[in-house]
Amino acid sequence: MTTNTAASAAPAPAGSREAELQALLGPERVILGQDIAPALRSDFMGQDIGSAEAYFKVQSTEEVQKLVRYAADHDLPITIRGAGTNLVGSTIPHGGIIIDLSAMNKILELDEANRTILVEPGVLLCDLQAYVEERGLFYPPDPAEKNATIGGNISTNAGGMRAVKYGVTRDFVLGLEVVTAKGEVVTLGSKCLKDATGLNLKQLLIGSEGTLGVITKCLLRLITKPEATAHALVGFTSLREAITAVNDLHAANLAPTAIEFVEKKVIAIGEDFLHKQFPLPQSTAYLIVTFDGKASELPAKLNQCREVLAQKHQIEFLDLNDPQVANTVWTVRAALAKAVQASGIWEPVDTVVPLNEIANFVDFLGELSKQHGIRILAFGHAGDGNVHLCILKDELPLGQWPQTLQQILSALYRRVYQLHGKIAAEHGIGRHKRLYFLQEVNETELSLMRSVKYALDPQGLFNPHSGYTL
Amino acid sequence: MTTNTAASAAPAPAGSREAELQALLGPERVILGQDIAPALRSDFMGQDIGSAEAYFKVQSTEEVQKLVRYAADHDLPITIRGAGTNLVGSTIPHGGIIIDLSAMNKILELDEANRTILVEPGVLLCDLQAYVEERGLFYPPDPAEKNATIGGNISTNAGGMRAVKYGVTRDFVLGLEVVTAKGEVVTLGSKCLKDATGLNLKQLLIGSEGTLGVITKCLLRLITKPEATAHALVGFTSLREAITAVNDLHAANLAPTAIEFVEKKVIAIGEDFLHKQFPLPQSTAYLIVTFDGKASELPAKLNQCREVLAQKHQIEFLDLNDPQVANTVWTVRAALAKAVQASGIWEPVDTVVPLNEIANFVDFLGELSKQHGIRILAFGHAGDGNVHLCILKDELPLGQWPQTLQQILSALYRRVYQLHGKIAAEHGIGRHKRLYFLQEVNETELSLMRSVKYALDPQGLFNPHSGYTL
Repeated sequence: MTTNTAASAAPAPAGSREAELQALLGPERVILGQDIAPALRSDFMGQDIGSAEAYFKVQSTEEVQKLVRYAADHDLPITIRGAGTNLVGSTIPHGGIIIDLSAMNKILELDEANRTILVEPGVLLCDLQAYVEERGLFYPPDPAEKNATIGGNISTNAGGMRAVKYGVTRDFVLGLEVVTAKGEVVTLGSKCLKDATGLNLKQLLIGSEGTLGVITKCLLRLITKPEATAHALVGFTSLREAITAVNDLHAANLAPTAIEFVEKKVIAIGEDFLHKQFPLPQSTAYLIVTFDGKASELPAKLNQCREVLAQKHQIEFLDLNDPQVANTVWTVRAALAKAVQASGIWEPVDTVVPLNEIANFVDFLGELSKQHGIRILAFGHAGDGNVHLCILKDELPLGQWPQTLQQILSALYRRVYQLHGKIAAEHGIGRHKRLYFLQEVNETELSLMRSVKYALDPQGLFNPHSGYTL
Repeated sequence: MTTNTAASAAPAPAGSREAELQALLGPERVILGQDIAPALRSDFMGQDIGSAEAYFKVQSTEEVQKLVRYAADHDLPITIRGAGTNLVGSTIPHGGIIIDLSAMNKILELDEANRTILVEPGVLLCDLQAYVEERGLFYPPDPAEKNATIGGNISTNAGGMRAVKYGVTRDFVLGLEVVTAKGEVVTLGSKCLKDATGLNLKQLLIGSEGTLGVITKCLLRLITKPEATAHALVGFTSLREAITAVNDLHAANLAPTAIEFVEKKVIAIGEDFLHKQFPLPQSTAYLIVTFDGKASELPAKLNQCREVLAQKHQIEFLDLNDPQVANTVWTVRAALAKAVQASGIWEPVDTVVPLNEIANFVDFLGELSKQHGIRILAFGHAGDGNVHLCILKDELPLGQWPQTLQQILSALYRRVYQLHGKIAAEHGIGRHKRLYFLQEVNETELSLMRSVKYALDPQGLFNPHSGYTL
């Protein structure tokens, strides 16, 4: 897909809507209607393409204000986008205008005394991580997609692997600058680490998927970069054993940075793709446990981890201190995603269940997969119950795919709700999960969400066809 | 003050408001008007006494619903109270009814597999802590007032000492059951550790000081109880040195549980009160640093702490492993509060500033104290910038106290705002800080807060004279 961001060439007839849109930031700063590249009217999956009257790549808070005010005056829906890495259709417009924040990507202030950083929302996670780590600091949230923007991470409250030790994006957002539905600018939060002065609107904005306002600045909390990181691969005789072991690790208070799980049968896909063999081939399921901290203390941590696990489980334990072995493990793990993408059409799923239900849920997925003859690959964050799934079309005829997928998703999300889980842990609802969300959400809760939405955005300008909105 | 909770004796005339109030939960379950003990119409300070038509000590969510519906039908303001330990007048009614949740104090479910506990809001913090610690578990938030209810802790997002390592109450609330302004019951959140499904109303409720609904159940996250705790008393040549050293501790990633600061001149008040001598008498200011974790690892932690601090600062370092020395330190520290209360009339203040402004703020307080000839004692949580103050009337004639106090508070809060701080870190705004809050809060932010408030509580039933409300 092309991502042409050149402005539409021809000046529109005076007095027309097009002419007004061209006048807003200047004709060279807008792309109109069909000239907007399909990629800019879609999400990462690129399967659904929306339509919009105009696309603007903004450079400042003032430009955002100007666009929001125009949209409000003309009742135009606003679709907010960053790097477009979302997987749930949040950035698919349904008319109106697109505000692209990816060019607002400046790092504005690093405050080393308070360990905070102020950035524009278009800064990419990878760039932020590199910037602070070069300076001995650390931004703990670590979702897999490093090319996502910080604004996007905040809008979905992205989690990632290191959530087990450090928490999710929410836990590192100290403040936000936001353009409201009236086009006003408001700063929420501060460099203070505690705050009990009134309603915490910052917390409400986090994870709201662009439905309440446009985030134009992000004040983030940093910590000192841990001196070193150590990993172990632990092989188990079954996934159930592996999941039970997670509980033992939590109970031992070892403060692991991350606990990932993956099954042998899933790993085999990465192995086939790379023609590389994964270590501990006798095991049926694995945990990859990560620790960070002082280099001198990590060997003892890994030892404690091994002891805790060996006490109750039959395990194979591989300290990944050999860079070559470690490299194989991570490369095969990463190849899974590539293998999935290479397989053709697939659907990403981002469920979360209480810790003690992970094994039940994965067992259910095995049955569901068998029942439909469809591969469902489960791997994810065992430390926090976030199970990522890939549902693969493989050889199923394209004509049968939508219906089969819908049957699988319906059964799957029903099971998630039975297990008191949630259908989105860190990707959000967007457009794609809206149906399943609305089927199950409590009526009263939904009505409260909508009351809040329309209190802050009475016209329903922001991402009106996304998530929980009307 | 008496805290008589016996029902009003006489049955009211049929058809009267009083008769209706008596009929709601039965005549033996209500106290009417002037029969309500003053302590139940006030806060911990007990200086301002409000008035209400009726007081109900509820026993169930259904009773709360019944009362809220009646109040909604009759446009009666609702003041929600727990143990009444708040310091900012949040529980002072202004007409209407009082809903006292302190009898809803059951522990409903301990889920050891998921490390969660479900409790009613009236459970006292001390009871919760004892209950889980007896079972090898741990609830990290630890505000100083252990006789506060969990519901109250959530309503102010209470912090406490251990926030440095573990975060505040918000970080341990997984779910809430809430009675809305319509009298409906809604459950927000779940046992899942991540959640990206719609607006996070739970986060909005936390810290909202009872202005959005009545919390009737609390689902809390627990961790395994740390094996041991170790403390060190570190003496510095000045408070500024001590505060700078906090930054060095953070930079060293030692993960202290708590970092408290106190000045020698403040400690002297505790010493005088108890006739005990505090250790390290040569120092001008102190940090008390706490670590928790494996018993075997704590001596090394204290050593690292000492090394990090000694590298840049002239310090005296006392490992508080001698229980007798430790006991003196904590007893003198605790005696400060008693000495303050024994001094007569005083005003508690709960400011927070960015970490690098603590020393500037405390310097300013010294000047302010001198200027007014009034003792202002500062101590608190150096690890997170939360500076607690006690402003003491001492020998100032009572007639001059209100005006002097107001002058001091105005200057003090003005300075807090200049330093980009907040006037409430964990106590809330309530009625007492409302004036100062409204003077400084950004107009747009205030208007957004009020929009959200009236979206969820259109009649303005809940704590209408408190905090940010109209």
